[in-house]
Amino acid sequence: LISTGGLGPTKDDITKLTFADYFGTKLVLNQQILDDLSERFAQMGRTLNDLNKAQAMVPESAESFTSPVGTAPVTWFTKQGKSIISLPGVPGEMRYLLENLVIPKLKERYTTDQIIHRTLLLAGIPESNLAEMLSVVDDEILAFTNSDARFKLAYLPDLGTIKLRLTGIGSDQKLIEQKISQWEKEIRAAANKYIYGEGSSTLPQAIGDLMRSLNATLCTAESCTGGYLAHLITSVPGSGDYYQGSIVAYANDVKTDALQVSQSTIDTDGAVSESVCGQLVRGALAKFDTTFAIATTGIAGPSGATEGKPAGTVWIGVGTHDQIITRRYNFNRNRADNIHLFAISALDLLRRFAKGLDQA
Amino acid sequence: LISTGGLGPTKDDITKLTFADYFGTKLVLNQQILDDLSERFAQMGRTLNDLNKAQAMVPESAESFTSPVGTAPVTWFTKQGKSIISLPGVPGEMRYLLENLVIPKLKERYTTDQIIHRTLLLAGIPESNLAEMLSVVDDEILAFTNSDARFKLAYLPDLGTIKLRLTGIGSDQKLIEQKISQWEKEIRAAANKYIYGEGSSTLPQAIGDLMRSLNATLCTAESCTGGYLAHLITSVPGSGDYYQGSIVAYANDVKTDALQVSQSTIDTDGAVSESVCGQLVRGALAKFDTTFAIATTGIAGPSGATEGKPAGTVWIGVGTHDQIITRRYNFNRNRADNIHLFAISALDLLRRFAKGLDQA
Repeated sequence: LISTGGLGPTKDDITKLTFADYFGTKLVLNQQILDDLSERFAQMGRTLNDLNKAQAMVPESAESFTSPVGTAPVTWFTKQGKSIISLPGVPGEMRYLLENLVIPKLKERYTTDQIIHRTLLLAGIPESNLAEMLSVVDDEILAFTNSDARFKLAYLPDLGTIKLRLTGIGSDQKLIEQKISQWEKEIRAAANKYIYGEGSSTLPQAIGDLMRSLNATLCTAESCTGGYLAHLITSVPGSGDYYQGSIVAYANDVKTDALQVSQSTIDTDGAVSESVCGQLVRGALAKFDTTFAIATTGIAGPSGATEGKPAGTVWIGVGTHDQIITRRYNFNRNRADNIHLFAISALDLLRRFAKGLDQA
Repeated sequence: LISTGGLGPTKDDITKLTFADYFGTKLVLNQQILDDLSERFAQMGRTLNDLNKAQAMVPESAESFTSPVGTAPVTWFTKQGKSIISLPGVPGEMRYLLENLVIPKLKERYTTDQIIHRTLLLAGIPESNLAEMLSVVDDEILAFTNSDARFKLAYLPDLGTIKLRLTGIGSDQKLIEQKISQWEKEIRAAANKYIYGEGSSTLPQAIGDLMRSLNATLCTAESCTGGYLAHLITSVPGSGDYYQGSIVAYANDVKTDALQVSQSTIDTDGAVSESVCGQLVRGALAKFDTTFAIATTGIAGPSGATEGKPAGTVWIGVGTHDQIITRRYNFNRNRADNIHLFAISALDLLRRFAKGLDQA
């Protein structure tokens, strides 16, 4: 139990007295703490007044520790194997003492389990398919029994992405790390194509890292995503280094005027079509002259559905001056979720295309 | 106290028995309920079996009501002025009975206070300035005392917008409505320029309504907002009716090539400048030939600050073919919040410009 605050020199600071009362002990002078305080004050050219001196009065039955970052000492009661610790409430003092005194001492005095996480981030695969793909590893993890190391594989799906968290808990840190590394390797072998990152990174960050590593530039041509794809890309600080811009071609006129989409293709195939999608990629590459371009054209809903193209249908294209690939996806969500899924799918298709994992 | 579930005809349905036991009563046949059930079953060409018939057994000391939407009746105990009501757990049955039986009967049996809300939505003004502007109304609301009608004005700020919620609570519905209408009028008179909507609408929806009412079209040219402004606009279903598209000119080359911004202006004034902002509006109007255009150029941060232009600086311009206005704003937030504040400010400037509330 760690309490903070109420340790100052004024009358409304009652924590020390309350603890002493609760534990049936009294306050006594701690000479070491008084000497430490005197020395510190002397270095600042100050002398202790009575209120400062009173800070060296500490509960007799507790351990007390001088604080190197303030005048209030730390008191530490131990009862029935439990620690009851009183820290000052000033945030800087509290943080310092917690990190440099309390946590190290807790580790000395108690043995606790290690908790080790390894988190892999995936896109472009439904949770159920991923679970199928990882069934062997999953079974290995479930079957593993050891009192010093227990493991769990958690599937944490978000809209369009999945966080796969492998957790090991136990006293045998070496065994935990070894098993986690082994299973991570197996997971990567089974689902490599879908893994875009690890830890707390995001898909737009992964795209940024990829563009930088390839020394490549990027642009977008967006219909149904309406600027959201550009927004995800530019949410990454420094994205201006690789991202040139976007044409948000919400109206068909903009598709034909700004992106050289052929009016006759729109008339024949519709704006939501593989052919228009390919022309949007080509138009964007011509306009921005980047290494890569992404294009989206679809129906975010709720209105706009046509025969054979329900709301949630999208064509996504990615390409370079040399090669363009297009893919059709169907989602069935509300407008906001469809737009998010379109954009995530577009970023993920670019990732796989640029890494040579998905080609024409 | 309203409980749901456990009223079915099977052995694990023990709610009725438990309540009867708790209230020290026994189950008796309710002929009315049995007749109602028989009639309903007969209409479906079915006959009651013993389990169905058992549903007409109800606690003697409770009132019981036939459910028109299921076979389980509602039982209603009254003790010390309190109601203890048992409803079936099937969601559709429960909802129907709550709305059509329980709430009307509760209203008959108890007098409760009316709670009436009026919510106004504002943008473009800091909370403290708004509070100052509304100090007279605020004081009137605070000073008003009446045991049958109590009032509260709550300021609920979000990033760039404020929800102003006027609440009246009490038994005198007429007085509450009259005072709320009076104060709403005073608030509107004092802060009209900043009010973009009411209830649960959003600023992009308000922009949509405004464009439709003016039979106008809209486009955007975005630098620092990186597509987010377009995304907010296109988050509204049917926005394609007035919104044409955006040029996301993240790189300066795109500003000069796609939006006819002058390279020499960029060289002289910098990309984040009033002159470039005005040229972005003009370029967008030329490109998309819409009624209105919005442009943003600024520094979302954390990097990119220059002498006199800290991160969080933005120039926003809105205009028509006849008139363009530009405004400088300074925010001091993280990247995501700055981008949001830039876009909200841009939408709000368009709103005020298009309504003639803010002109050159």
